[in-house]
Amino acid sequence: MDAVVLEEAGSPRLVDRPRPDPAPGEVLVRIDRVGVDGTDREVVAGAHGRVESSMVLGHEAVGTVADPNGTAFEPGETVVPTVRRPPGDHNEYFRRGEPDMAPMDATVECGIDGADGFMAEFVAVPSEYLLRLPERLAPAGFLVEPLSVTAKALELVEASREPFTWERNRALVLGTGSLGLLTLPVLDDRFEEVYCLGRRDRDDPAVQLAESVGATYVDSRETAVDDVPGAHAPMDLVVEATGHAPHAAESVAALAPNGVAALLGVPTDHEAPVELGELHRELVVGNRALIGSVNAGYSHFEQAVEWLDALPASVVDAFTEHVYPLAEFEAALDRDVIKTAVELDP
Amino acid sequence: MDAVVLEEAGSPRLVDRPRPDPAPGEVLVRIDRVGVDGTDREVVAGAHGRVESSMVLGHEAVGTVADPNGTAFEPGETVVPTVRRPPGDHNEYFRRGEPDMAPMDATVECGIDGADGFMAEFVAVPSEYLLRLPERLAPAGFLVEPLSVTAKALELVEASREPFTWERNRALVLGTGSLGLLTLPVLDDRFEEVYCLGRRDRDDPAVQLAESVGATYVDSRETAVDDVPGAHAPMDLVVEATGHAPHAAESVAALAPNGVAALLGVPTDHEAPVELGELHRELVVGNRALIGSVNAGYSHFEQAVEWLDALPASVVDAFTEHVYPLAEFEAALDRDVIKTAVELDP
Repeated sequence: MDAVVLEEAGSPRLVDRPRPDPAPGEVLVRIDRVGVDGTDREVVAGAHGRVESSMVLGHEAVGTVADPNGTAFEPGETVVPTVRRPPGDHNEYFRRGEPDMAPMDATVECGIDGADGFMAEFVAVPSEYLLRLPERLAPAGFLVEPLSVTAKALELVEASREPFTWERNRALVLGTGSLGLLTLPVLDDRFEEVYCLGRRDRDDPAVQLAESVGATYVDSRETAVDDVPGAHAPMDLVVEATGHAPHAAESVAALAPNGVAALLGVPTDHEAPVELGELHRELVVGNRALIGSVNAGYSHFEQAVEWLDALPASVVDAFTEHVYPLAEFEAALDRDVIKTAVELDP
Repeated sequence: MDAVVLEEAGSPRLVDRPRPDPAPGEVLVRIDRVGVDGTDREVVAGAHGRVESSMVLGHEAVGTVADPNGTAFEPGETVVPTVRRPPGDHNEYFRRGEPDMAPMDATVECGIDGADGFMAEFVAVPSEYLLRLPERLAPAGFLVEPLSVTAKALELVEASREPFTWERNRALVLGTGSLGLLTLPVLDDRFEEVYCLGRRDRDDPAVQLAESVGATYVDSRETAVDDVPGAHAPMDLVVEATGHAPHAAESVAALAPNGVAALLGVPTDHEAPVELGELHRELVVGNRALIGSVNAGYSHFEQAVEWLDALPASVVDAFTEHVYPLAEFEAALDRDVIKTAVELDP
């Protein structure tokens, strides 16, 4: 079967691999579409994750059950695989159903970190790592994984503000990548006003999409993150979805009292002077919080399916506009548009 | 009546003031004891809060109802006043019973920031800002306020980790001041191991008290905060109770995956180079959080009364060893021992 693998940084290749033979408890899934995001590009560039000799790329997938192999699935069901797997035997995090809380040495991540991903015609997936979704959601099913990342982050955010009356007036998403853009309609349902900060021109399709779901665009070349309160208003929530290292401290400066910043991006090293006293004071005196979040658990994937079903059609259209056949996987990995994906069985 | 007031930084004075005449809804309270903490010393030094011409000092008080003045209190009941008051009319935070969540411009703080404190023979307190406690707790009743600060912080901490299975293996308190020391026995009931980091010699009474409640002492002159995981183990909780600005970033480095650091201290300005990429990554990839917390609400004061009642007798003894008569208030403000307090009606 065809698969896109990475053997050395910068050079993903389309290769022939044997079709996997599902072990007991595993489902054979025919992959339909695989989304591409910034993490995939970092993996290809060798800047994220780890590749042991050869790794199939892709972690945002939707497929169809080809062989239930004795599990509770039915042939033809539309499914999405989760990303994390135990490295060897199940450990406590996987036993609890909280793989997203596993430290990095207690998990591998399909297509990212030490395990084959989903950009292949067939994959064998243990049934507990598969999620059903309605067939009508199949064309955009590769958005379940990124939406699950937002679902987990917002669960942590909401929990952190649960002891008091948290005012949901304004939320700001940092980043106009696919994760940031997908988060906007979710926040639009929960906050009075939603802002989106990026480095794109106003006529860029990503900015137009952000504005089409009701977000106010802030060009970071004109207004820095910590200037947002002065230029617009202080934010009750900031979602950092770029991985730009200075954003952690800058986000705190953008927060209203009692606000919280969720960090989702994974930055590279970046040393810089910081006014630590001010950062510390703003956190304490303003009851502010900074919350890191990575990956997602099964319940977050389930939440993501609900959110996917509720996405405006214009968003789904924009996110499924650039789907390439497998032979053109390099275009999907290269192009900086709202979202790209690879289709395996057109 | 006698009162200790601050008119200019550095020079608190014992003065004669008219006994307050309680307005409708206010209770006349005879103050028994007032604790002194680092915030009081900063207020006296002019480094914290704001003093409008003249302010009675003290925010950690216990007293006795002298005149219920038509409220539901009874003469002779032991009471503790809370610290925050609305500046002028009640605002939404006070109406909700969440004065601790009020931004600084929506509250004053008795004895700290824009309102008279409790280091006076009598104070008039609106009944909604008074808490009853059992008379047997009266001698250490001035510890309710600092314990309430811990109660609020731990409520925010627990809430932030509620969505997953948080392992409570190890907690580290930064600071051997009264707030840090009071937090140790509370954490000792909740964590397998408790550590306390400070800059005191091992024969210092504060260190001996920390060890007497089961904490492992870490001398920060030998082991920096971010070296704690290497020297001991990574921490599931860090409670920052010093206000040393670099601690916010260093605390994250001391955390185990899924850990949380609560910041309680209020530092002055401190600019320093920070490896922001690493800080950001540790937060994200390790699902870590930094949570600021200030002041406390009524429910936290109630929790603090329960905790005070459960404090080991040795801790209560150590915290009530240095109680000075009012005439010696300067000794109480000056001395760096576990805890000092002023007694108004010996």
